[in-house]
Amino acid sequence: MPYCVIGLGAPQESILSDSSFTRPSGRAAQQLRDVQIQAHFSRHAEGSVLIRMGDTHVLCNASVLERVPPFLKGQGSGWVTAEYGMLPRSTHTRSDREAARGKQSGRTQEIQRLIGRSLRAVFDLSALGERTLHLDCDVLQADGGTRCASITGAWVAAALAVRRLQTQGLLAANPLKGQVAAVSVGRVQGLGLLDLDYPEDSACDADMNIVMTDAGQFVEVQGTAEGQVFSRQQLDELLDLAADGIAQLHGIQQQALESA
Amino acid sequence: MPYCVIGLGAPQESILSDSSFTRPSGRAAQQLRDVQIQAHFSRHAEGSVLIRMGDTHVLCNASVLERVPPFLKGQGSGWVTAEYGMLPRSTHTRSDREAARGKQSGRTQEIQRLIGRSLRAVFDLSALGERTLHLDCDVLQADGGTRCASITGAWVAAALAVRRLQTQGLLAANPLKGQVAAVSVGRVQGLGLLDLDYPEDSACDADMNIVMTDAGQFVEVQGTAEGQVFSRQQLDELLDLAADGIAQLHGIQQQALESA
Amino acid sequence: MPYCVIGLGAPQESILSDSSFTRPSGRAAQQLRDVQIQAHFSRHAEGSVLIRMGDTHVLCNASVLERVPPFLKGQGSGWVTAEYGMLPRSTHTRSDREAARGKQSGRTQEIQRLIGRSLRAVFDLSALGERTLHLDCDVLQADGGTRCASITGAWVAAALAVRRLQTQGLLAANPLKGQVAAVSVGRVQGLGLLDLDYPEDSACDADMNIVMTDAGQFVEVQGTAEGQVFSRQQLDELLDLAADGIAQLHGIQQQALESA
Amino acid sequence: MPYCVIGLGAPQESILSDSSFTRPSGRAAQQLRDVQIQAHFSRHAEGSVLIRMGDTHVLCNASVLERVPPFLKGQGSGWVTAEYGMLPRSTHTRSDREAARGKQSGRTQEIQRLIGRSLRAVFDLSALGERTLHLDCDVLQADGGTRCASITGAWVAAALAVRRLQTQGLLAANPLKGQVAAVSVGRVQGLGLLDLDYPEDSACDADMNIVMTDAGQFVEVQGTAEGQVFSRQQLDELLDLAADGIAQLHGIQQQALESA
Amino acid sequence: MPYCVIGLGAPQESILSDSSFTRPSGRAAQQLRDVQIQAHFSRHAEGSVLIRMGDTHVLCNASVLERVPPFLKGQGSGWVTAEYGMLPRSTHTRSDREAARGKQSGRTQEIQRLIGRSLRAVFDLSALGERTLHLDCDVLQADGGTRCASITGAWVAAALAVRRLQTQGLLAANPLKGQVAAVSVGRVQGLGLLDLDYPEDSACDADMNIVMTDAGQFVEVQGTAEGQVFSRQQLDELLDLAADGIAQLHGIQQQALESA
Amino acid sequence: MPYCVIGLGAPQESILSDSSFTRPSGRAAQQLRDVQIQAHFSRHAEGSVLIRMGDTHVLCNASVLERVPPFLKGQGSGWVTAEYGMLPRSTHTRSDREAARGKQSGRTQEIQRLIGRSLRAVFDLSALGERTLHLDCDVLQADGGTRCASITGAWVAAALAVRRLQTQGLLAANPLKGQVAAVSVGRVQGLGLLDLDYPEDSACDADMNIVMTDAGQFVEVQGTAEGQVFSRQQLDELLDLAADGIAQLHGIQQQALESA
Repeated sequence: MPYCVIGLGAPQESILSDSSFTRPSGRAAQQLRDVQIQAHFSRHAEGSVLIRMGDTHVLCNASVLERVPPFLKGQGSGWVTAEYGMLPRSTHTRSDREAARGKQSGRTQEIQRLIGRSLRAVFDLSALGERTLHLDCDVLQADGGTRCASITGAWVAAALAVRRLQTQGLLAANPLKGQVAAVSVGRVQGLGLLDLDYPEDSACDADMNIVMTDAGQFVEVQGTAEGQVFSRQQLDELLDLAADGIAQLHGIQQQALESA
Repeated sequence: MPYCVIGLGAPQESILSDSSFTRPSGRAAQQLRDVQIQAHFSRHAEGSVLIRMGDTHVLCNASVLERVPPFLKGQGSGWVTAEYGMLPRSTHTRSDREAARGKQSGRTQEIQRLIGRSLRAVFDLSALGERTLHLDCDVLQADGGTRCASITGAWVAAALAVRRLQTQGLLAANPLKGQVAAVSVGRVQGLGLLDLDYPEDSACDADMNIVMTDAGQFVEVQGTAEGQVFSRQQLDELLDLAADGIAQLHGIQQQALESA
Repeated sequence: MPYCVIGLGAPQESILSDSSFTRPSGRAAQQLRDVQIQAHFSRHAEGSVLIRMGDTHVLCNASVLERVPPFLKGQGSGWVTAEYGMLPRSTHTRSDREAARGKQSGRTQEIQRLIGRSLRAVFDLSALGERTLHLDCDVLQADGGTRCASITGAWVAAALAVRRLQTQGLLAANPLKGQVAAVSVGRVQGLGLLDLDYPEDSACDADMNIVMTDAGQFVEVQGTAEGQVFSRQQLDELLDLAADGIAQLHGIQQQALESA
Repeated sequence: MPYCVIGLGAPQESILSDSSFTRPSGRAAQQLRDVQIQAHFSRHAEGSVLIRMGDTHVLCNASVLERVPPFLKGQGSGWVTAEYGMLPRSTHTRSDREAARGKQSGRTQEIQRLIGRSLRAVFDLSALGERTLHLDCDVLQADGGTRCASITGAWVAAALAVRRLQTQGLLAANPLKGQVAAVSVGRVQGLGLLDLDYPEDSACDADMNIVMTDAGQFVEVQGTAEGQVFSRQQLDELLDLAADGIAQLHGIQQQALESA
Repeated sequence: MPYCVIGLGAPQESILSDSSFTRPSGRAAQQLRDVQIQAHFSRHAEGSVLIRMGDTHVLCNASVLERVPPFLKGQGSGWVTAEYGMLPRSTHTRSDREAARGKQSGRTQEIQRLIGRSLRAVFDLSALGERTLHLDCDVLQADGGTRCASITGAWVAAALAVRRLQTQGLLAANPLKGQVAAVSVGRVQGLGLLDLDYPEDSACDADMNIVMTDAGQFVEVQGTAEGQVFSRQQLDELLDLAADGIAQLHGIQQQALESA
Repeated sequence: MPYCVIGLGAPQESILSDSSFTRPSGRAAQQLRDVQIQAHFSRHAEGSVLIRMGDTHVLCNASVLERVPPFLKGQGSGWVTAEYGMLPRSTHTRSDREAARGKQSGRTQEIQRLIGRSLRAVFDLSALGERTLHLDCDVLQADGGTRCASITGAWVAAALAVRRLQTQGLLAANPLKGQVAAVSVGRVQGLGLLDLDYPEDSACDADMNIVMTDAGQFVEVQGTAEGQVFSRQQLDELLDLAADGIAQLHGIQQQALESA
């Protein structure tokens, strides 16, 4: 993880959209990476997809468990939750295995809480019945944006699991009220970029993860100024970029679901 | 912690600013709680303040440690980091002691990472020299908004510790490049509110924590739709509310520092 | 924590009561520090006091929990237990946060067991009913004698919680059978001293923590010769000192309770 | 994990090789599952293969670390070690995530120790130089025989990493002295079977995991009678079956390496 | 623990049975150490033996617990399980205490799983009734072969506990269907040896632990080539050696039981 | 562990020394249990004794480690420390294994800290040189008083280890300045008793553990009123009892050392 140790300066006014910065991947500033969602990757899960956003590959498995956490027992409501992990050599240099270290890092916990909240935002939990949809997002290969890919893929896995419950006649109503997808946006050398890859993410200006529904509503807005604070105008620009990217992702999710 | 199990609906159009909702505390929608920052609360810390935002009381202690984490060793740069905790009976009903349970919750880790990043945004770490400013934020009494109060108080504690280092002649330049403060904003029954207390926070619509500098720049924007997604217009409204509140907090920080 | 690495010698006969040693604080040998007990410090706890013994400040919160540990279930008896912690910067130099290290030290566990036993000694647990009185003693600032201040303060917090249960008509009989308070005594440079502060405690001769009831009976006697063993005569002297000090503390507890 | 709770009986004499038992998969008794070894599955690892033995899929990544464990420091020798994990939903029903539970199970530790020993048996560690070859075997999908697939796949990943070190001119001599592969064999309803899948493995007679080199030598022989003890003659039969299967696996390893 | 870092070579042909190697203890190659099984060593356990195999001393205590693990509840079947530990100074140089380190090593877990499986192989668990036989094997002094001594001793402790249950009239049928014992065999300097002691075990060629019933059937066969792989012929030789040794151990178990 | 849930009453005046209470063991009130100290019980430790106080059996092993803890490094001083454990079935009913639970209980930590302090009180640590004497006290069988037996036995183990260092010419001066031993005393039904066994210990009045040197000085005085507070006169009586018992133990230690 790169640590930004650059102090705060005045907002860099000279960094305009006509910045001469070129993305390492050759993409345009407002261009997503190539996205592929492969359904039924894993045989046992009730819903399973491998999502590839460029070189970031995340296996998203949805398990249907016929139980709910204690705080929901007997209340006629279901639950949606998530866990996240990175394989030790999904990263450029090998990271420690969290199971071997004996605890999940703060970053891992933060991400799995985010995935769970994002998915719950599009679920009618009472329509799910007293069952849990448990989403496991495991990063097989990482190149930036793993939490966003996890959310986008997990929604498809969840939708596959719901479809299966419907096919089995186990649901009276559709618990899925909409789509949710996520993308990162950020500023590198003063230029707003959509869907950062690892080299861009490490370049270390402001960075946001945006989660939105297909109705164009926000579920999560997480902006972090590692190194460089950002103005309201810059924030607005990044939100616009994200909204465009997420709309594309919603389309890709639909296609993956239809062809599955 | 209240769990929101309300599904997603269309954004509630009928909830306007002229909502008839009254805050339990009697405050106006755009009104901060009464804020008091008591400097030198604790005798041993290099900087110490007790910040009270209404019934939320956080003890913020800044320790100067003459060492840096391994990844910074020998690089001529300092570090600023934070830890956060809640006393078991700071809450309405007793919570488990994290030291007794043997691990910090995901929420605790998320918050202490946020505090650390927020403070680093206004520090010139190389001007700090190879030392660590360690901020301990311990909640003595909780009534909502503890992470925001922690950031606002921690900045004053940090500033007191820096002043002391300057008095001792240990700093060539001022490592503090600006002020940072934070506030929560949220929507309850369709009304945008500044500085949520616990009953409001539990009422469970969209909720944001905003961290800004005294130059009006954003450091962190964290919006979470527990239960109710939010539109771009609603987001804009909340950001405006937060900017006003944080400007007031910067003034209170200055006063506390001057009279200390 | 200072480690005493002085070997055993013959008891130092030349160290008499007319020793020329002067306490750093200027107190007389048999003089307590200034003691203040501030009731209702914390808003949520059923009983709450901040006890200040000089520069040692401990927040003692009593929580009433409507359950008992498994070994008492269904036996018509209540339970009284305690937990103890020190804020990381309560000490002269910052200590690690136990929640971050993932376990409580042996010292912490020893102290919280002692507080629990001391309080149980003055409780009629069956009169308490099947509920637990959970005492949290958190050291906000430390200058020696934190375990004794915890016991003395916890008793007042417990008494406030009991009073509240009585007011609510939840108790048939008073479960509190007496008062309990504690003080440290020790020998520094051959002189017996009451209520050691940190510099005295570190000076590292024999050291005792005495817990007594208001009937003048002993609950706990814990004497430890870190560095210097002690004779029966010296032990007797220290027990006399402690008995006088504790009697004064019982008076201060009564006052705090009456004016609360 | 199926628990065998069947007591010991006399060896079942009536169970002959002409048993009428048919494998669920339709395979012949001495037939391996379809084996595929896909090289360069993961982009960052120095050696990476996805091995598929029927429905058992294991991602084996070899990382070259320029350090050795403390007990080897300064001795001019390298080290080869392994870690193993199963994704939570690699199994028929979801298993707990070991990172979330905070510890690796005894089974996991047993398997990763086995993989490490098996690989070290074909390495000349001094020819490796003071570096560690760290093998991560992560089960993406499980259908029995994951430890054997891990060993067989890990050898190819290790060989790819060694080839890369050679290409970079970092090795004076080839540290790889031979091939190693593994297979399970077992008795189901009295019939000796090669390469058990999960339904066969759960059927719960004697079960062996055999690890052999391409010189036909044994590295590990692990036979376990869960439920049914076995005679020397039955053991001999299983060893013969395994030797044949492993020879085929050595051929498949060679092909994978040549075409990579 | 000695780490073998010797690479793989061709099997050492020159090492014949007429090797001039002499065992440090002066024993013949096929000779067990002096074995003593002292019954009723510990007063409280339902079955207790101290087994001494030369300088390896293991205290094996069998506890009868009137409960079964959750997966067996209400199924009319019992359970047999084991735990294993080494006192810190049972070894030549002091090892860390596992309770202090906060976790059991992989080796410990591997061994206690092996002991449990071995004992279960000779138990009719349904005849045991819904109770658990918990075997604690604690190594007081170690000189190689502790896991084998544990199994051999644990069987006697288990048999004593069963006898006691029978005497108390608590068992309808005898749950014990046979005897189980274990021994290590290995190759040192090309010579097959029975019952390795620590210096032999550290000499680091192939090493096997064999567990057999008194009917001459195998329960576990665990062969490990730390350093030197082994041929089928060498494996056969070691199995013959083990069978002879284990037959002797079954006789010693019987004697211990009869004279208890 | 018995939990005392008896409330506080007035001190029981009617319980006099002429109480008709008879000890379950038939011992006189001031009589020690039969004490045996078997030297050289364990082969590998530098000093090893099995101490038996009636049915309480503790194996005390002293290890000489050629290193000191970090806080003493380079200061020319040695260290003496202790660890304590109970075998799971040393007790009447099986206790959990601390290594399996993953942490040492508060009681265990309290006891091992006590043993360490007690031994250090009779050591001249600088005469020991920069080495650590690590005492492991493991309870093989428990019948009350295990911490006292541990201290008494550990001293003999430590003395044996020191003697060995002297024989090896590794010590310039004798680091052992005296003897230390410990005994429990307590009040059961108003009668002061020496050296409580488990049934007496569970009977649950005041209970003290006293540690003294052979010069008649106190090292530790730990009195605990589980259930029944005690007066100064009763305390004095118990201290007298203890002093007599410990003097006998010092004699038994000497004998054990001489005949070893």
